[in-house]
Amino acid sequence: MKNHDAILMISDSERDANMYYVTGFFAPDPFIYLQLSGGGKIMVMSDLEIDRAKAESKADRVLPATKYRKIAKDKGLENPLFKDILGEVILELGVKSFLVPANFPIQYADFLREKGYLVSFKPDPFIEERAIKTEEEVENIRRALKHTEEAMSLAIDMIRDSKIKNGYLSWHGDILTSEMVKKAINVKLLENGLLAQHTIVAGGDQCCDPHNQGTGPLRANQTLIIDIFPKDMQSGYYADLTRTVVKGHATDEMKKMYGAVFEAQEVVFRMARDGADCTGIHNEVQKSLEQSSFKTGEMNGRMQGFFHGTGHGVGLEIHEPPRMSITPSEAWGNKLKAGHVVTVEPGLYYLGKGGVRIEDLIVVTENGCENLTSFPKELEA
Amino acid sequence: MKNHDAILMISDSERDANMYYVTGFFAPDPFIYLQLSGGGKIMVMSDLEIDRAKAESKADRVLPATKYRKIAKDKGLENPLFKDILGEVILELGVKSFLVPANFPIQYADFLREKGYLVSFKPDPFIEERAIKTEEEVENIRRALKHTEEAMSLAIDMIRDSKIKNGYLSWHGDILTSEMVKKAINVKLLENGLLAQHTIVAGGDQCCDPHNQGTGPLRANQTLIIDIFPKDMQSGYYADLTRTVVKGHATDEMKKMYGAVFEAQEVVFRMARDGADCTGIHNEVQKSLEQSSFKTGEMNGRMQGFFHGTGHGVGLEIHEPPRMSITPSEAWGNKLKAGHVVTVEPGLYYLGKGGVRIEDLIVVTENGCENLTSFPKELEA
Repeated sequence: MKNHDAILMISDSERDANMYYVTGFFAPDPFIYLQLSGGGKIMVMSDLEIDRAKAESKADRVLPATKYRKIAKDKGLENPLFKDILGEVILELGVKSFLVPANFPIQYADFLREKGYLVSFKPDPFIEERAIKTEEEVENIRRALKHTEEAMSLAIDMIRDSKIKNGYLSWHGDILTSEMVKKAINVKLLENGLLAQHTIVAGGDQCCDPHNQGTGPLRANQTLIIDIFPKDMQSGYYADLTRTVVKGHATDEMKKMYGAVFEAQEVVFRMARDGADCTGIHNEVQKSLEQSSFKTGEMNGRMQGFFHGTGHGVGLEIHEPPRMSITPSEAWGNKLKAGHVVTVEPGLYYLGKGGVRIEDLIVVTENGCENLTSFPKELEA
Repeated sequence: MKNHDAILMISDSERDANMYYVTGFFAPDPFIYLQLSGGGKIMVMSDLEIDRAKAESKADRVLPATKYRKIAKDKGLENPLFKDILGEVILELGVKSFLVPANFPIQYADFLREKGYLVSFKPDPFIEERAIKTEEEVENIRRALKHTEEAMSLAIDMIRDSKIKNGYLSWHGDILTSEMVKKAINVKLLENGLLAQHTIVAGGDQCCDPHNQGTGPLRANQTLIIDIFPKDMQSGYYADLTRTVVKGHATDEMKKMYGAVFEAQEVVFRMARDGADCTGIHNEVQKSLEQSSFKTGEMNGRMQGFFHGTGHGVGLEIHEPPRMSITPSEAWGNKLKAGHVVTVEPGLYYLGKGGVRIEDLIVVTENGCENLTSFPKELEA
């Protein structure tokens, strides 16, 4: 990392978790954030946001964008743009070199470089401490997960309480669909202040595509994967929970898949600790599934078996470092650290047989891990 | 614009509306999109997404990221990263120069330039045709707005049906709060498949900060601003609607503010047409409010009066071009065009007196505009 006069970020904190992390302020439109190496966190805000930013943000100083727009105008620019405001702010601050995130927009990088400023980016993760959760952050995730478990409970109750009619699930006289269960989950979460997007309730061959959210009538005697990953709108933190159930009769093959995935989770629970290698864990999970005779690879033109990561960090983003996957990452050392909150979500997917995924959320500790999830694991509903 | 071999985008289509627009495919993790100048839309997808992308996206070809990762590995890279996959893909395609969006990440721009590729960005809007809505897109927005009006109706019914007790609104025996009304709005929307974030139900001085979402008990005889801007989860399109109401008695001053804002909207309805100047419209709105003796500026250290834009485009993003504001934009010519869908949302905000904002959604036509909003405008609930 080169020396730099300031960290510079330009983004909206609604979509950029780093920006929210440093400012503690949700704003839907991009703004400028500077963190001077000599100390001082500075936000440059529009008239619309400036009072709220002064009241709510973590910044030491909140500068008005209009002031710098006026300065640029007084210098002869007819219509100063956002970049011109940036230009006037850094001129006044006297900063000449910047460290920016890897996703920093090319338009501002080129603008600054053309003016002779030095701009270098830091590979992700930009803010390493985000991966290590404070007690308050773990508490936020725990609260989100508690409500997620309530929604899961509601979903599985709907499946359990339904009757089987001609092979389909029937609930209060209607054919039960993926959409109905997803809506019940999402409404329940919203009532508790959590926002769920892309909730998955998918059965049979649908759930063999792990990102298929599921559509249409639910059938008996098929695996149904329910994956819920909402965001607590107050705190901004996510939770993530998956269960697989069969309404009616689970075949021996389904039970064997379920047992293998359950055991693969146990492999992670045993290995996860401060310093454990992420890809090493993933490889052991893969090996454990293969030892249960479940192969992975392309079959009939489709990836089948276990073909996604074992887990990912969860925090202000639903997918964040660390990742336990086949691809090691040098950027964050590829090791678990105490304070990481990660999913543990092995799965198996075979067309014609169905899919099984079980997902818990753990916090890594010095000597092991704590499972934040307490929701039961039962295949037959 | 320089010549280029391909358009290149690297982002997730969950948060990047351009990526969703060109691929028609929602994915939560970043992926590579190339549009060859010779023709051909190409997506490079992970094993997890590749089958769904082949089935659902608009791409002509979907390439497997794992193939290019393997090529990089075979060349001696121990742990090929995302950028190395990019490197192998463009090598195979034989493309050497790229046009990228203004928000293209510096990390990939620097990677490509260091390898000798040409990378130039196009200022926003990257995809100009996004601003001009097709009939299908207007239909999507109309449907989202219809559900938004239903939610507004529910909210105003709650306020209308409440009793006044000691100056507060009482609803079925409980003090009615901003939070209760927001929850009712958001749940109603979700039941119809729309996702609402940051819904505003704010009264009195709270609503003088246009982005304050509102908290705590609602009072009688105060202006209450209700601003709802949900996204239809099926289509990805937004709607945007604001009304201001007073439960109980509206003062003459409130009525005068309401009338001035109502009239300011009419100014826009009269001026909006293909070719109209956006900043010209905004300036006329400002003038109209001033002629009603409502001044804008800093008073007691806070911006008061009318200090935000008159309107913004709405589509796959809640804020997109065009904008009718004090800041002209050369990037898209600063003119309204037939097919633009924009908000019309003048407002007035004075501490101690309250705030008024009224917001409709219009589609610009050759000779005028059509108001997509039919929700009534009545101050006293």
